Amino acid sequence: MDRIQGGVCAAQGFTASGVHCGIRKNKVKKDLALILSDRPASAACVYTTNLVQGAPIAVTQAHIQNGVARAVLCNSGYANTCNADGVEVAEAMCGLLADAAGISAQDVIIASTGVIGQPLPLGPIAAGMGPLFAALGDNSEDAAVAILTTDTRKKEVAVAFTAGGKACHMGGIAKGSGMIHPNMATMLVFITTDAAITPALLHRALQENVKDTFNMVSIDGDTSTNDMVSVLANGAAGNAPIAEVGADYLAFCEALHAITEYLCREIARDGEGATKLIECRVEGARDAASAKLAAKSVICSNLVKAAMFGADANWGRVLCAIGYSGADVDVHKVDVRFVSKAGSVEVCRQGAGVEFSEELAKAVLSQGEIEVRIALHSGAASATAWGCDLTYDYVKINGDYRT
Amino acid sequence: MDRIQGGVCAAQGFTASGVHCGIRKNKVKKDLALILSDRPASAACVYTTNLVQGAPIAVTQAHIQNGVARAVLCNSGYANTCNADGVEVAEAMCGLLADAAGISAQDVIIASTGVIGQPLPLGPIAAGMGPLFAALGDNSEDAAVAILTTDTRKKEVAVAFTAGGKACHMGGIAKGSGMIHPNMATMLVFITTDAAITPALLHRALQENVKDTFNMVSIDGDTSTNDMVSVLANGAAGNAPIAEVGADYLAFCEALHAITEYLCREIARDGEGATKLIECRVEGARDAASAKLAAKSVICSNLVKAAMFGADANWGRVLCAIGYSGADVDVHKVDVRFVSKAGSVEVCRQGAGVEFSEELAKAVLSQGEIEVRIALHSGAASATAWGCDLTYDYVKINGDYRT
Repeated sequence: MDRIQGGVCAAQGFTASGVHCGIRKNKVKKDLALILSDRPASAACVYTTNLVQGAPIAVTQAHIQNGVARAVLCNSGYANTCNADGVEVAEAMCGLLADAAGISAQDVIIASTGVIGQPLPLGPIAAGMGPLFAALGDNSEDAAVAILTTDTRKKEVAVAFTAGGKACHMGGIAKGSGMIHPNMATMLVFITTDAAITPALLHRALQENVKDTFNMVSIDGDTSTNDMVSVLANGAAGNAPIAEVGADYLAFCEALHAITEYLCREIARDGEGATKLIECRVEGARDAASAKLAAKSVICSNLVKAAMFGADANWGRVLCAIGYSGADVDVHKVDVRFVSKAGSVEVCRQGAGVEFSEELAKAVLSQGEIEVRIALHSGAASATAWGCDLTYDYVKINGDYRT
Repeated sequence: MDRIQGGVCAAQGFTASGVHCGIRKNKVKKDLALILSDRPASAACVYTTNLVQGAPIAVTQAHIQNGVARAVLCNSGYANTCNADGVEVAEAMCGLLADAAGISAQDVIIASTGVIGQPLPLGPIAAGMGPLFAALGDNSEDAAVAILTTDTRKKEVAVAFTAGGKACHMGGIAKGSGMIHPNMATMLVFITTDAAITPALLHRALQENVKDTFNMVSIDGDTSTNDMVSVLANGAAGNAPIAEVGADYLAFCEALHAITEYLCREIARDGEGATKLIECRVEGARDAASAKLAAKSVICSNLVKAAMFGADANWGRVLCAIGYSGADVDVHKVDVRFVSKAGSVEVCRQGAGVEFSEELAKAVLSQGEIEVRIALHSGAASATAWGCDLTYDYVKINGDYRT
């Protein structure tokens, strides 16, 4: 499959825009994003499992119960969560868009990210509808930027693939891991494709995908109140709608995986204060569940994250994280290796330390992208998790309170 | 129940000592501790659930299968974990003590804390036996210091209580949360009492106790490979042995709770880089499990910990942590309040924000001991968890690698 340009506009029939409508004081920062399909699209979403759910999630859930949507509207600045009138405000935003676009409010996927517990002002959004529509076009980048909170860079990707003999395209934008006082980290992902697929299969593809991608990312272990991943598939590619599991469904899932894995890595790389993307790959696990538990545990461990910040080849902490992960492992069979552009160094074999060059280890761990590779020698299952190092800047961003 | 002096020597028939035997290079730092009973004692221990378990744990488990022990021997400096010969070394240490004390090696509880994956040298320990015995006496403080790694202060407490009409005493020492490269955090707790109690009931009392105490403490979420809590009860008080659940058993459990809760708070207060002890108290939960899940989740949340460091009244993060905790809660009924010596401020009611004085909140949160009080309004169950703030020093201690 080929990487292409265009982000969420790579797929035929999709346009996007991003503007500064005034939710955020900073006039330079865009705060309202729109993705629009020129025709109804199959829609599927997955949401945070946090019991505290932003109002936008409740409204989106209701809107896509029929498996169909046409637009995504997302603001940054306020999360519209923990507000008494949250649902009304979210519905009103959909209404404003519906009026401007000539579509049904029920066909709108609505999302918000930003400050919790403060009301989301509708005034700026109403005022922003005109400019938002005027700016619609091949503008994935503007939308990608408008959804960011304190991310330091946009996350955008697109691929081309084939289904039913037709050229299809899929693209996505994401934001994650931005946190300032008193915002909440939220992971938002919006994916579009021109492939034709039934809502049921789209839902299944997304549900299966996130188990290996977004559910395997952790920046600091705190699951947001507003996480959402959504996919719109509008069929503009003209392929026979994918309605059953077969070669075309597999090609679709492969494209989805390419998009989502890329976005996962970029979200992890841009974590609060992060200087390093850490990928933990576990192989040889007894079963998939154990592989995932072990990989996730290593990536979430504050001690491992801090060691990575310090370029410290502390395999004991990796072993410790595997040991309390709940994974079914034989700790006397575990190998640990650190790999990066600078080389590869084995630090633990069969659950015990081995001689290794501290100099090589330091060089390996001083890179901006590190793989912690773990072999469990107990089966054939594998899993990968993504995270980042724990740095002074994380504490500064999240703890250094200035009135 | 009254607080008294003496630590682990408050109970009749117990003596202790702590020396520098040479495991650690720093001659000022004691590294070998001994607690000895003048008669066999009922013994019970609980251990880390990490699958990676230090050799001392395996040996201790075997030794106290019969419910009886007479001594605790503990070194700091090396954890004797992930070494091929770990069990032999741990057994050898017990043998050295047995020879010196004229007791059975099977009656020794053995513990180690320190560097993982490096061999524990027996030479210094053998050389240290003489001095260790010569120093035996009312010296709980020396033992309390000898077990520390990078804790900044000892943790020691004792209480007097009554059972079977006799004056009984119970005391404990603990270490926790000390971490330097490449050591592992380990929580070790040694408790002695002169009350008479059967091994079975002692085991039951300890098992029940840790659910509310040591299992509700978190410094950074990483469960060590060497955690151990042990209790020796030698009957020197002369009470009729507590053999069934009744008034005396309850008095015993109350004393045990006073000892362990004190040590939990002190361990949390002395966490890596901590400037604040944080106590999260959850009330009104549907059931005990939900209360514990919610309290523990709040105390473990990096975002809450960082907010506490910054004296930031970020109730949204507290709510978020409750929401992903797995606790069965109605998020629209949750109240959150911050309490300390400086006052009390309600920040969230029924799951939504309320007006509060930022100035008061800042004053409350700038104290060294903070309570996060949560009311769930769904039942009558409650739970308390302890932790600390996340600071720059935590990152420095655990990530700032110096060759």
